[in-house]
Amino acid sequence: MTDKLYIFDTTLRDGEQSPGAAMSRDEKIRIAKQLEKLGVDIIEAGFAAASPGDAESIRAIAEVVKDSTVCSLARANERDIRAAGEAIRPAARGRIHTFIATSPIHMEKKLRMQPDQVVEAAVAAVKLALEYTDDVEFSAEDALRSEPEFLCRIFDAVIQAGARTLNVPDTVGYAVPHLTTAFFKRLIEGTPNSDKVIWSAHCHNDLGMAVANSLAAVLGGARQVECTINGLGERAGNAALEEIVMAVRTRRDIFDLETGIDTLQIVPSSKLVSSITGYPVQPNKAIVGANAFAHESGIHQDGVLKHRETYEIMSAESVGWAQNKLTLGKLSGRNAFRSRLQELGILPDSEEALNNAFARFKALADKKREIFDEDIFALIGVVDPAEALERYKLVSLKVVSETGEAPAASLVLNDDGAEKLVQSHGSGPVDATFKAIETLAASGADLQLYSVNAITSGTDSQGEVTVRLARNGKVVNGQGADTDIIVASAKAYLSALNRLVDERERAHPQV
Amino acid sequence: MTDKLYIFDTTLRDGEQSPGAAMSRDEKIRIAKQLEKLGVDIIEAGFAAASPGDAESIRAIAEVVKDSTVCSLARANERDIRAAGEAIRPAARGRIHTFIATSPIHMEKKLRMQPDQVVEAAVAAVKLALEYTDDVEFSAEDALRSEPEFLCRIFDAVIQAGARTLNVPDTVGYAVPHLTTAFFKRLIEGTPNSDKVIWSAHCHNDLGMAVANSLAAVLGGARQVECTINGLGERAGNAALEEIVMAVRTRRDIFDLETGIDTLQIVPSSKLVSSITGYPVQPNKAIVGANAFAHESGIHQDGVLKHRETYEIMSAESVGWAQNKLTLGKLSGRNAFRSRLQELGILPDSEEALNNAFARFKALADKKREIFDEDIFALIGVVDPAEALERYKLVSLKVVSETGEAPAASLVLNDDGAEKLVQSHGSGPVDATFKAIETLAASGADLQLYSVNAITSGTDSQGEVTVRLARNGKVVNGQGADTDIIVASAKAYLSALNRLVDERERAHPQV
Repeated sequence: MTDKLYIFDTTLRDGEQSPGAAMSRDEKIRIAKQLEKLGVDIIEAGFAAASPGDAESIRAIAEVVKDSTVCSLARANERDIRAAGEAIRPAARGRIHTFIATSPIHMEKKLRMQPDQVVEAAVAAVKLALEYTDDVEFSAEDALRSEPEFLCRIFDAVIQAGARTLNVPDTVGYAVPHLTTAFFKRLIEGTPNSDKVIWSAHCHNDLGMAVANSLAAVLGGARQVECTINGLGERAGNAALEEIVMAVRTRRDIFDLETGIDTLQIVPSSKLVSSITGYPVQPNKAIVGANAFAHESGIHQDGVLKHRETYEIMSAESVGWAQNKLTLGKLSGRNAFRSRLQELGILPDSEEALNNAFARFKALADKKREIFDEDIFALIGVVDPAEALERYKLVSLKVVSETGEAPAASLVLNDDGAEKLVQSHGSGPVDATFKAIETLAASGADLQLYSVNAITSGTDSQGEVTVRLARNGKVVNGQGADTDIIVASAKAYLSALNRLVDERERAHPQV
Repeated sequence: MTDKLYIFDTTLRDGEQSPGAAMSRDEKIRIAKQLEKLGVDIIEAGFAAASPGDAESIRAIAEVVKDSTVCSLARANERDIRAAGEAIRPAARGRIHTFIATSPIHMEKKLRMQPDQVVEAAVAAVKLALEYTDDVEFSAEDALRSEPEFLCRIFDAVIQAGARTLNVPDTVGYAVPHLTTAFFKRLIEGTPNSDKVIWSAHCHNDLGMAVANSLAAVLGGARQVECTINGLGERAGNAALEEIVMAVRTRRDIFDLETGIDTLQIVPSSKLVSSITGYPVQPNKAIVGANAFAHESGIHQDGVLKHRETYEIMSAESVGWAQNKLTLGKLSGRNAFRSRLQELGILPDSEEALNNAFARFKALADKKREIFDEDIFALIGVVDPAEALERYKLVSLKVVSETGEAPAASLVLNDDGAEKLVQSHGSGPVDATFKAIETLAASGADLQLYSVNAITSGTDSQGEVTVRLARNGKVVNGQGADTDIIVASAKAYLSALNRLVDERERAHPQV
């Protein structure tokens, strides 16, 4: 019988730990709903004890997501477990994922605990978690650098305590596939009652092998993989969900496993996460990169024309790259727009959000001849103004840039209701615009990143600008899209600024 | 004894097959010299038979590179082999890399040849190549989907004919590591005199496992890996050189292999390739991504502070991420500039090129307070005006963009010596600028890509703009850098346009 491989997505937890990828509650809900549509089995929605904001996001996701299990991370201590348990309470299916480090270097240098104390803490954590849900996962942090004997001992103890999933993370991205397979086999053989639980892999990509290690774990007996959309995550990121899923599907001859993933939702999920976090996907990224299915050389093109399978092992359509990307134009009505959003899997819930998106669509169609799916993703991905309480808004903007003179920007900003004129010169029109905004905001923030991507081809394309600001350890991203790159830049800067000054927004998890 | 793992870089051949990554001769020479400094054993410099321009680039690289072997690809036919042989003639060490497909699907659907004919063609190709060099490599295209018995037969035949390196490519990115190891073992065991040759892996990343498959091949007996900087290459790209090298180095306990790579040159090589091809590196890319060594979460930061090895398996410094990035300022003289270029490994050859770079540096220092290494990489990476015969040059530019009115651009361009004023409106200032240029150039080219990255943080950062234009199947990239994003955009567009209209430039390989 074909086994099921459980897909555990941690874009909202481990993915969010990428610098500047902190997301608002509403953004997390939007991604969680897309993950549910994608068919993810478990959504790790956050780390409840990190902050009240994190807990609130998990609770909100637990309220709206029905088809996927909603999970919170928790260290192996009472405060963390209780925070996680409270956060997942509204979920149709809720999981607590508790962890403690088990490698000698981590136990000694970080925890400063004896192995016996670590086992005791793990067992106590699992037992406490069971007061909130019968679905408890235990992770041995830095497992791939831990003693197998000690792992078998702690896993035996937590199985007895009631854990249903055992996760074996390669926390530092250090593993090599053939040893990962052997490691899982050894753990599963050496742990009593190992057939009563699901074994799980969680791999990081520091040496570029996260996906291969995840699949090597599966060959060793793992039936859950923890992964993120686009391989987002700390440092070089986590294993990419889309690569694992497509490898299992393309090489069914080897893995003989089913996942619950609707692969047509892979590209929409990738675009949504990229747009919300401001993390671009490089063109040569597998599956979801713009070139992943492009055949450049004449030899390959010829082969593909003669017989498609000569160079294609999977089709672009199967992962949601629409064949015909041109979809809507100036004359498209609200119904056409609505049904296209539905096809793309990004229809907003409320009529109000749909109306806002449609208004932005019409404004864009006035400026741009052809509207592509990518434009629509951008329209939907960019923070909905109705959703966020924004202090600063752009009213109007004028920039003049002339060779030999310092570029000048003058903007009218709405600051909590009052319109104010700000002006500045700068080393370029974007610099002048940002400096003009700062004459009013005086945020003192550092501009850490500025990037622009044209959303579609053609000179009248929208530019999507990402701005990353940092102040006192808080790092925020802002996005703005417009056919005018300076306007898009101003919007992105204001969007970041609004998050920076938003006191309600929780700080980045700092535990 | 510790074996040597040969690093075969194909950035200039397979990497160039990325859409729009076609490079000029001078750009290829610049990358080849950097690869030599990186310590690459073999540089695949191109595919001589593809075009006279490709052959000329290989010849030019063969003339200047002394420490690395210079290689040309060639199909298994007389014309290709002779073109390759002529191109590598000036090399201190030259290699011909000839290939033919060996999988049933490729032999039947693409080559339309019988297996006997394929063996015959391979042997004839190797023998002919030996007339030009004793260093001949043979590749069995799509080997991972070929019959092992047939591979052993053809490998036996080409070893007898005199091939010294046998390459086993996973052309479609289909392999899974444990089977790759087994496949190499089987081939090496089943091929007579297999110990007389070097076995090589060439893996593609369609399922995200190119690096793991390359290393799996090494575990199966391969001692050469074919790879590219940043994992550039068709579709999802090739195995990334930097990941393979750092995995072998970090996990010496498993691989026990030496490479000749100077890892300090990894990041400079990555930046140079990214800058020349216009292919960005995503922040969560292993080793060379901007976040690859960033520790975001509080737990991890705490661990790193307590004991570095808790979360770091290699250091950022070891791959060339300089700790102190601030290097030069307005008052820095030509000698300081020169020695910094030398430290960064990007000192130009000619005094004229150095003088041009220094002039650009001083112009930048007038506009920007602090000059970082990244700025210097950009200064050097951007096409040197002295090197290219450019038809169009930017003399001056004025843009006005105001809310409620269509943005307007007016430029003075130098068109082969004559100054001309051009003007246009557009949907944004960049659009207006490009349309103004087109009123003069009337190229009819499609704008396929437009992207901007700030080179450093801070509002006065330079923007580095990449523009990709396509016309009649010819695809070119142009880059421009300036503190003014509109000026940078104009420069990038003109740079692409100059390549598009340059009749001397060879078309993209179309064989």
